[in-house]
Amino acid sequence: MNVLKFSVPEILFGEGSLGYAALCARRLGGEKVFLVSDPGVKQVGWVEKLTDQLRREGLTWAYFDAVVANPRDVQVIDGARHYREAGCDVVMAIGGGSPMDAAKGIAMVASNGGRVQDYEGANRIQRPLPPMVFIPSTAGSGADISQFAIITDVERQVKMSIISRTLVPNISIIDPLLLTTKPTDLVLSSAIDALSHAVEAYTSTIASTLTDVHALKAIDLIMKTLPMALEERSLQVLEKLSSAGTSAGMAFSNASLGLDHALAHSLGGKLDLAHGLIHPVLLPPVMRFNQPACPEKMADIGEIILGRRYGDDGDTARAGIERLEEFFAELNIATRLREILGTADRAILPPICRMAQSDACLITNPRPTTLEEMMAVCEAAW
Amino acid sequence: MNVLKFSVPEILFGEGSLGYAALCARRLGGEKVFLVSDPGVKQVGWVEKLTDQLRREGLTWAYFDAVVANPRDVQVIDGARHYREAGCDVVMAIGGGSPMDAAKGIAMVASNGGRVQDYEGANRIQRPLPPMVFIPSTAGSGADISQFAIITDVERQVKMSIISRTLVPNISIIDPLLLTTKPTDLVLSSAIDALSHAVEAYTSTIASTLTDVHALKAIDLIMKTLPMALEERSLQVLEKLSSAGTSAGMAFSNASLGLDHALAHSLGGKLDLAHGLIHPVLLPPVMRFNQPACPEKMADIGEIILGRRYGDDGDTARAGIERLEEFFAELNIATRLREILGTADRAILPPICRMAQSDACLITNPRPTTLEEMMAVCEAAW
Repeated sequence: MNVLKFSVPEILFGEGSLGYAALCARRLGGEKVFLVSDPGVKQVGWVEKLTDQLRREGLTWAYFDAVVANPRDVQVIDGARHYREAGCDVVMAIGGGSPMDAAKGIAMVASNGGRVQDYEGANRIQRPLPPMVFIPSTAGSGADISQFAIITDVERQVKMSIISRTLVPNISIIDPLLLTTKPTDLVLSSAIDALSHAVEAYTSTIASTLTDVHALKAIDLIMKTLPMALEERSLQVLEKLSSAGTSAGMAFSNASLGLDHALAHSLGGKLDLAHGLIHPVLLPPVMRFNQPACPEKMADIGEIILGRRYGDDGDTARAGIERLEEFFAELNIATRLREILGTADRAILPPICRMAQSDACLITNPRPTTLEEMMAVCEAAW
Repeated sequence: MNVLKFSVPEILFGEGSLGYAALCARRLGGEKVFLVSDPGVKQVGWVEKLTDQLRREGLTWAYFDAVVANPRDVQVIDGARHYREAGCDVVMAIGGGSPMDAAKGIAMVASNGGRVQDYEGANRIQRPLPPMVFIPSTAGSGADISQFAIITDVERQVKMSIISRTLVPNISIIDPLLLTTKPTDLVLSSAIDALSHAVEAYTSTIASTLTDVHALKAIDLIMKTLPMALEERSLQVLEKLSSAGTSAGMAFSNASLGLDHALAHSLGGKLDLAHGLIHPVLLPPVMRFNQPACPEKMADIGEIILGRRYGDDGDTARAGIERLEEFFAELNIATRLREILGTADRAILPPICRMAQSDACLITNPRPTTLEEMMAVCEAAW
């Protein structure tokens, strides 16, 4: 067997855990916090809650929110310059996947120098990063848990996957209260992102028992609680979604991902799409393509989705994928690729697929994938 | 809800992972390793394999193995003195739960000073510990994963539970090859220890989704693979036991334990018993006592043990406990308390129970337990 690596941050989980953020920064030796967020999170009051806490704890901070969804290399470079100029010694991020990924990039460039592009791929960060305390405001990106940072290269129009153990934050503070202030569409898209993380991690070529238990738990929780969460948004239900996102994060951080994410990164880099909403389009055809390479595991996923087995492994897997498609359709979101691309011109597909061929996530897809096969998956999703 | 904490070391898992030990020590900034082991592990060649590796990596070391099973406070103090005198800067342990717990105690006293007793209980360690790289040679203690160190206070004849996040090693290297050189009785007792960790963690009052998935996986793996492991001892089967022990470690480290371990520590402190062999005696009566306080969870355990549900939750739980008793009986180990105590005199029970009343593990038992109830559990185990 191969030697598997499993790395997760220290986690504080539960209502009110946000209240420990300043203490955590202090415990990691921080005195001046570089606080990364986004204007939406600030508007609903979480940033002020956090800075009040930092003040009470005797910490100072520099605030940075010049970050967009699908954060860009230029923003990371800008943030790293701010970090150094302000003389910070700990990075704190509060928000969704975008500010958290940007904060990772900033920590990386501030401590290791150079350009974001220098670190694209796996294990290319040499020097230690400043300590990081992350507080996710959505339940799905897993950026607070994972070894991944996804940063857009503006010039090449590609989302770079940067993967390194040193990108795992020191502490993740997961307070489901933050989800109560999120618009429904963000709760939805981040939960679907988590679902795709779990499915791809479970079928990854480097999955292990340690990641599998979290992947299956996440799939189960999301299928059961997402429809409820969109209707009632009770703290109890949102807490389950948070737990699912955390489990999915532990799974994909250590097992990596696959074809769905390779394509999603390529599409997202080209077209600046909402990442979570690409998966309902891609995941079912990717699962159909991968199924012959991992029939038992795809049947396990089917069993979780359906609540029982249907005939043999193949039957169970196929019925599970069909049910997943119905599940997405019931959520009233786009389920065809042409709908989310904003174009009916298939000419966009070859460059998307060529770009996806070099994404680091493709390495662990259970079925090796040629350019032609990738095109066929996109046609099936069209 | 309460704020839950989840902390696990970075893990390298798999055949050959031992080969990364020196690199790990170096990555943590170590130059002189304090290497803790026991004569049995040394005899079969693992210590030499490790020191060869340290030498190749340009590291120096001080070797320490003046540690017995159920390690003692005086040995820890002795080790801490050696650590300081040798000018070490990283602690490495290779062996079972005893040398690993001793190594934790040494790291604690060497960096925080004082006596071992100063740190008994939860969260009493103030200053950071030197980095720790642990390599378990059994699949069950979970000491390479957990926040726990169990050290015997020789004078009081009590096993002290020391619980602190800072006792989680930085890196755990789990190489199932080490299990191939272990005597069968140690494979057995450590697997049973892991089973008891998983059962108590699953029913703990501070269990969470993050710990539950690992607890159930561990129970499932141990019930299925332990009988095989005792017969064929193939690397594949031993690897599953290692994985189970790791999952059980993640579960109990973060969910803590219960009545079974409170009593086991008390018994072990008084009588210096093999820790793993106390659980077949105590666990079934403890589960029967706890069942009314956590009927659903005890039924989940029953379902895993039996492979299916039997009637309602109560029926499933009871049938599961009965099957567990049969499982222990089939392993040809002592299943009555009087057999392992080496005495037929029940007068030993009241002091054992009084001591167990103050064990930190009792706090998270699902059912509050009076001294009288504890005595009744011991009588049921008698």
